[in-house]
Amino acid sequence: MTSPATIDTVLAAVDSGLDQSLERLFHLLRIKSISTDPAYAGECRKAADWIAGELSGLGFDAASRPTPGHPVVVAHGPQQPGPHVLFYAHYDVQPVDPLNLWDTDPFEPVIREKDGRKIIVARGASDDKGQMLTFIEACRAWKAATGSLPVRVSLLLEGEEESGGTNLPPFMRENMEELKADIALVCDTDMWDRQTPSITTMLRGLVADEVEITAANKDLHSGMFGNAARNPNQVLAEIIASLRAPDGSVTLPGFYDDVAEIGPELKAQWAGLGFDEKGFLGGVGLSAPAGEQGRTVLEQLWARPTCEINGMSGGYIGDGFKTVIPARASAKISFRLVSGQDPAKIRAAFRTHVENMLPPDCSVRFTPHGGAPAITVPADGQFLHQALQGLSDEWDEQAVITGSGGSIPVVGEFKKILGLDTLLIGFAHVDDQIHSPNEKYDLESYHRGIRSWVRVLGALAQ
Amino acid sequence: MTSPATIDTVLAAVDSGLDQSLERLFHLLRIKSISTDPAYAGECRKAADWIAGELSGLGFDAASRPTPGHPVVVAHGPQQPGPHVLFYAHYDVQPVDPLNLWDTDPFEPVIREKDGRKIIVARGASDDKGQMLTFIEACRAWKAATGSLPVRVSLLLEGEEESGGTNLPPFMRENMEELKADIALVCDTDMWDRQTPSITTMLRGLVADEVEITAANKDLHSGMFGNAARNPNQVLAEIIASLRAPDGSVTLPGFYDDVAEIGPELKAQWAGLGFDEKGFLGGVGLSAPAGEQGRTVLEQLWARPTCEINGMSGGYIGDGFKTVIPARASAKISFRLVSGQDPAKIRAAFRTHVENMLPPDCSVRFTPHGGAPAITVPADGQFLHQALQGLSDEWDEQAVITGSGGSIPVVGEFKKILGLDTLLIGFAHVDDQIHSPNEKYDLESYHRGIRSWVRVLGALAQ
Repeated sequence: MTSPATIDTVLAAVDSGLDQSLERLFHLLRIKSISTDPAYAGECRKAADWIAGELSGLGFDAASRPTPGHPVVVAHGPQQPGPHVLFYAHYDVQPVDPLNLWDTDPFEPVIREKDGRKIIVARGASDDKGQMLTFIEACRAWKAATGSLPVRVSLLLEGEEESGGTNLPPFMRENMEELKADIALVCDTDMWDRQTPSITTMLRGLVADEVEITAANKDLHSGMFGNAARNPNQVLAEIIASLRAPDGSVTLPGFYDDVAEIGPELKAQWAGLGFDEKGFLGGVGLSAPAGEQGRTVLEQLWARPTCEINGMSGGYIGDGFKTVIPARASAKISFRLVSGQDPAKIRAAFRTHVENMLPPDCSVRFTPHGGAPAITVPADGQFLHQALQGLSDEWDEQAVITGSGGSIPVVGEFKKILGLDTLLIGFAHVDDQIHSPNEKYDLESYHRGIRSWVRVLGALAQ
Repeated sequence: MTSPATIDTVLAAVDSGLDQSLERLFHLLRIKSISTDPAYAGECRKAADWIAGELSGLGFDAASRPTPGHPVVVAHGPQQPGPHVLFYAHYDVQPVDPLNLWDTDPFEPVIREKDGRKIIVARGASDDKGQMLTFIEACRAWKAATGSLPVRVSLLLEGEEESGGTNLPPFMRENMEELKADIALVCDTDMWDRQTPSITTMLRGLVADEVEITAANKDLHSGMFGNAARNPNQVLAEIIASLRAPDGSVTLPGFYDDVAEIGPELKAQWAGLGFDEKGFLGGVGLSAPAGEQGRTVLEQLWARPTCEINGMSGGYIGDGFKTVIPARASAKISFRLVSGQDPAKIRAAFRTHVENMLPPDCSVRFTPHGGAPAITVPADGQFLHQALQGLSDEWDEQAVITGSGGSIPVVGEFKKILGLDTLLIGFAHVDDQIHSPNEKYDLESYHRGIRSWVRVLGALAQ
């Protein structure tokens, strides 16, 4: 049970300690923990060690633990009554090329003004070092002001999120007992807008497949063979074209069988978000939603599955022209799934459809590229409502429940391996340029992100 | 008027001079006249100079003449009664990569045995140095045996056939008066089979276009935008798929309007060729002709137009998977045309069709890559029948009239610029590996190719 007065004391500690909090963030941002490039393995270790050291200093039982790849930092606060939360973030960052597009050194953080706001510019400022530290600094403030945390806190901080992350699920399986908790907290998402905090409760799943169609046993000259020889480019295009109906729906047999309509309450809540469809599409040069007709853009993105051709290639694609009929053509095709859809069933339906469309003399080879179901956090959970209350208190604005069209695989692993639901809470903004040059995190995101976690931890203790 | 006895004398000169003829061929094959690589410009000049020198030695008024690219060799024999022929071939060759797949040095010709036949192995042995010298050595034999040629001969030998050949048409226009003749002879084609010589009288035309479809103003994340954002890969695939009907025909409005059925005589003649459909398709791993149902493979290749997707690409095509919705997708599409079809009309119909299919938010950019009408040599011409007779005499087998699914642009230029019909006569075989490692020319192709030209020149003088 946390009193409002206690919360105020902790928030005061956040405010008075902000400069030191920023110094710690800058220290971490200077470490070049690019996980995908083996040349930076030492920097990844350095980041993990530094974080483990900081957490130990806060009274956590913390260690940087080896994996076949980069280390995982695990930290546990002391046993105590009330819920046990497991916080996840990642300390690794994306590469920085092209370096010449950065206005400042990506590993020398600076605070600048942009559109009247202060921003922290550095690789990882937003994704995910800044977001990670909002939580750790909130813990620090609780300790500083009250000597303890309001709930039991464990942390799981990985260093391979930007490079495939294949070592985390085995690590979670090997340490399943140790990592058990009541709820997972993940800080890797955006606010709804600059005023409105949000918790993401729906994430689409993903099925990705590569399809290679082969016809002749070698490339042919289109003069010598054109008409008589089967052209795999044509065959592949016909398959791709067949996947979407003119009304924007996906044609795969059974594709929508397990897709439920969203409930009237959620529908009303989403309608109340005042989402700017024109602005969203207009920002990337588009005007008309391409998915199922009669559905809002938010529905299309959050609540409806899709089929996307992420890549296709066949024949001569260099400069000029070459009159070839290629032996093969291939495409990378992915399906974003919503709650209820079974990745294995969708993959099987897709492959059967492709095989049924193959004309004579063609063969197909499939290469799977991962599959994961959609995630839905129960909208009536106690933790969810407590966390929403904590966020609303900080921002003086009702926190909203949103979906996301993307996938965050670790959330699925928490559910599958540890049986944990996840609250996705983050303070990033769409203009943070994550994965791009001049990545930034608003100073306000950092400061009020820390304050938000102070309140959320307090609310979870109620 | 050439007597059979004269012909026999000239043929005897060919036979007795074969070793020297081969030495000259080997000399030319050693010159690395790769036209597409600027590093070999000096070798191209060397080849042109050597040929001009040889022709001068045979009494031609010959010179290597500069162009903005590689030189053109022009040679004129003395004025004399009877027809005036203009012989065309090219002295440049394809690059030799991948070098490790050659059994011997591509520029050190050797004679080897293969399947009981002697073959000359070197880059250019068949395409086109060997074929070119069959004609020049025939001229040499005529001069050696009779002191003169039976008809007036001019030669036009280019060095850019393998690299675009953009400089030849302007050269022809600038020297139009000088290049006037009664008939063009081109030696760059195959025999029908090892026993049967042929003259190609139908060549398909070509219209090539590049199509780029653009939707969003940048690449998008398929999680964040998938469903709502238009995917140009999908749009392009739908356009490509729409170009062919399930019966194998091309769907473009008006595409077959100007296509005539071949006459019963030609149809009967082609049927008599005993073309092995199964063997032709089986050789490249196919079994079922993909073009219009109910038409023979030869009809599909020689007498029916086609639409081929020579290349397509969009989005991520590297290893692994990237969940991108690309901003653009593009395809290289070509139409092979038959007699009667107007390239400009087909291109316009294609572009209109694409524009009509564009969904909202998409734009298209077209880049033309050349266009040329189909070529038909009148089947009732005197020169054609004389040449067929000459070939039949040499091979003791009735020479046949064939079509070709490919395009030989220079034949169109001869017609357009110089008003010349062309007789396409060659002695290559489908297994000559032109453009590939271990290119070869049968020793028999070379020897009896020379003898064939001796007889054709004699026949044209009748």
